[in-house]
Amino acid sequence: MDENRLARIRDNMGRRGLAQALIVDPLSIWWLCGYYTEPYERFLALLVPAEGEPVLFANRLFPDASGCGARVVSFSDTDDPVPLVAAETRSDRALGVDKELAARWLVPLMESGAASGFVLASDVVDDARSIKDARERELMRAASATNDAAMAWLVAQVHPGVTERQIADGLLGEYRRLGAEGHSFSPIVSFGDHAADPHHEPDDTPFAPGDMVLFDVGCRQNWYCSDMTRTFFSAEPTEHQRAVYDAVRRANEAAEKIVRPGVTFAQIDLTARRIIEDAGWGPRFNHRLGHQIGLVDHEPGDVSAAHDEPVRPGQCFSIEPGIYLPGDMGVRIEDLVIVTEDGCEVLNSYPKGITVL
Amino acid sequence: MDENRLARIRDNMGRRGLAQALIVDPLSIWWLCGYYTEPYERFLALLVPAEGEPVLFANRLFPDASGCGARVVSFSDTDDPVPLVAAETRSDRALGVDKELAARWLVPLMESGAASGFVLASDVVDDARSIKDARERELMRAASATNDAAMAWLVAQVHPGVTERQIADGLLGEYRRLGAEGHSFSPIVSFGDHAADPHHEPDDTPFAPGDMVLFDVGCRQNWYCSDMTRTFFSAEPTEHQRAVYDAVRRANEAAEKIVRPGVTFAQIDLTARRIIEDAGWGPRFNHRLGHQIGLVDHEPGDVSAAHDEPVRPGQCFSIEPGIYLPGDMGVRIEDLVIVTEDGCEVLNSYPKGITVL
Repeated sequence: MDENRLARIRDNMGRRGLAQALIVDPLSIWWLCGYYTEPYERFLALLVPAEGEPVLFANRLFPDASGCGARVVSFSDTDDPVPLVAAETRSDRALGVDKELAARWLVPLMESGAASGFVLASDVVDDARSIKDARERELMRAASATNDAAMAWLVAQVHPGVTERQIADGLLGEYRRLGAEGHSFSPIVSFGDHAADPHHEPDDTPFAPGDMVLFDVGCRQNWYCSDMTRTFFSAEPTEHQRAVYDAVRRANEAAEKIVRPGVTFAQIDLTARRIIEDAGWGPRFNHRLGHQIGLVDHEPGDVSAAHDEPVRPGQCFSIEPGIYLPGDMGVRIEDLVIVTEDGCEVLNSYPKGITVL
Repeated sequence: MDENRLARIRDNMGRRGLAQALIVDPLSIWWLCGYYTEPYERFLALLVPAEGEPVLFANRLFPDASGCGARVVSFSDTDDPVPLVAAETRSDRALGVDKELAARWLVPLMESGAASGFVLASDVVDDARSIKDARERELMRAASATNDAAMAWLVAQVHPGVTERQIADGLLGEYRRLGAEGHSFSPIVSFGDHAADPHHEPDDTPFAPGDMVLFDVGCRQNWYCSDMTRTFFSAEPTEHQRAVYDAVRRANEAAEKIVRPGVTFAQIDLTARRIIEDAGWGPRFNHRLGHQIGLVDHEPGDVSAAHDEPVRPGQCFSIEPGIYLPGDMGVRIEDLVIVTEDGCEVLNSYPKGITVL
């Protein structure tokens, strides 16, 4: 059990007036007590009381959890874990629940009377996970350095006839060679106007000379995630293409420039959005500017107009403006940044200027 | 909208007295109305009222959903979808919710008063999905035929020095060559006593002559999943190894032999379990006998002592007994079966006799 992290969660619980919280996100459990397993449809949870020993509920089929620093309540596939949880919770107090807790467990827990009420309380963990400590920052930097190296590899794979899927499928091997465990999300490789769909899935489309090429990829290395996007040309850009690319690049760089403690997530989003609006493509930048990142690629607390909290030192998020013109082209340029005491550190160094492959 | 599948769900809702159900499993939504997207942390749901038009709630960032046969309510990243759902539900009736619905949506829906109560109702969809129609059975057969072919490829990869991870990483390419979209779950490749952990993750361990080798792999092809396990020898088995293997094989075959409509899932589990108990390794078969399968590798309604419903024609599940002896060896033999009118069809034909590579 990482007592420092546990204390940060309990501080947050105190502020919320919570006597107990049930954490089910396997990565939050790992982050707290170093025990990791992917439970799939089985039950895995860590009950954190405001005082006293945390309790880990684990199926006997999972790896041995003794030594994780929590008291372990184990059960088998034929046991119902709900009464086991209810036996450990205080029925006279509200239970804070993880946003990931599935209805399959939450509804029976409610019906069992395990607590006097059930409130969403992921923020007590998310807030603590959001602030990366020195060791975590180092790991975030390392994962992004690997991603920079992988981008160079990706660019080298582009030749006439190669398909989006072939390049995407080959990336795992490159990440492994570079020391990463694997992908942090399914890689996006988009040729030509496929880039106009921000979430395009690589398919059997072959590369044809003249196509623009977008790579949005990330690895997980020592548990921590990277995420970067670059968009390339394979022929001299037209004036129109250059204007679109330039607007996205300026939006990306302006947003990165204003990040410092006290500036809100919404202001960062707005800074990028204004540039794209002023260039005339406002409605074609149809998603938030970015997302926080750490143990998963999308962590809570996005960089959007709806999030008006100020950023804090140690927070790490993406800055990824885009312009999407269906049937024509798409451009997105994305870096990760970590907020520092007086600004931010951009974790990606892969060049962002117009590049013709 | 597949009217036949919608009618089956409404029949099930009628039996449960449900006036409305909220489906969030993206594959259930695809199965009903042919629209698929992976929403990650964003909201995607299909509201099915007992009468009248279903309503699909979709983020504008998702692919266009018009033409899916449901009325589409769309929203952007800065909108809260909860009031949009509450505006469409009947607040005076209970809402059946999908077991996958995350607390992040369920708790606010409850707080918004969207319904008079919230009950777990995935079974209305799961039950319908559980019974495969003729077209689905054909696809299940095809996916398992690909898996049989992939097992032959896997066996050919075993040579001194190759690592578990190298073989596991290469399997995706082979599945693609065979016409599958990809894995249905992360492949298990276990050398030597690694097979004693049923959920071993492939690592950098090299194969050494004499090692036993376990492959538990599956592909997704035309949306439908396969899943098969075989365990091989690379030296003439000892008497002990032969006895363990033989007990698992007999358990697998005896269970497959008794599958027919009316026999319960629990009886099938018990049939296999008795054989392993009688052979003296009862406690070393520490998981359920199998799981249903279809659009995902683990579908609800497992083959275990806790599930005493009778099997029905069209249901498809795994039969996968195993014996796990930590520090020594592990054996699992798994096939998929589809229940027929008078027995079952075993979807895998890869040989199960003792094989020395």
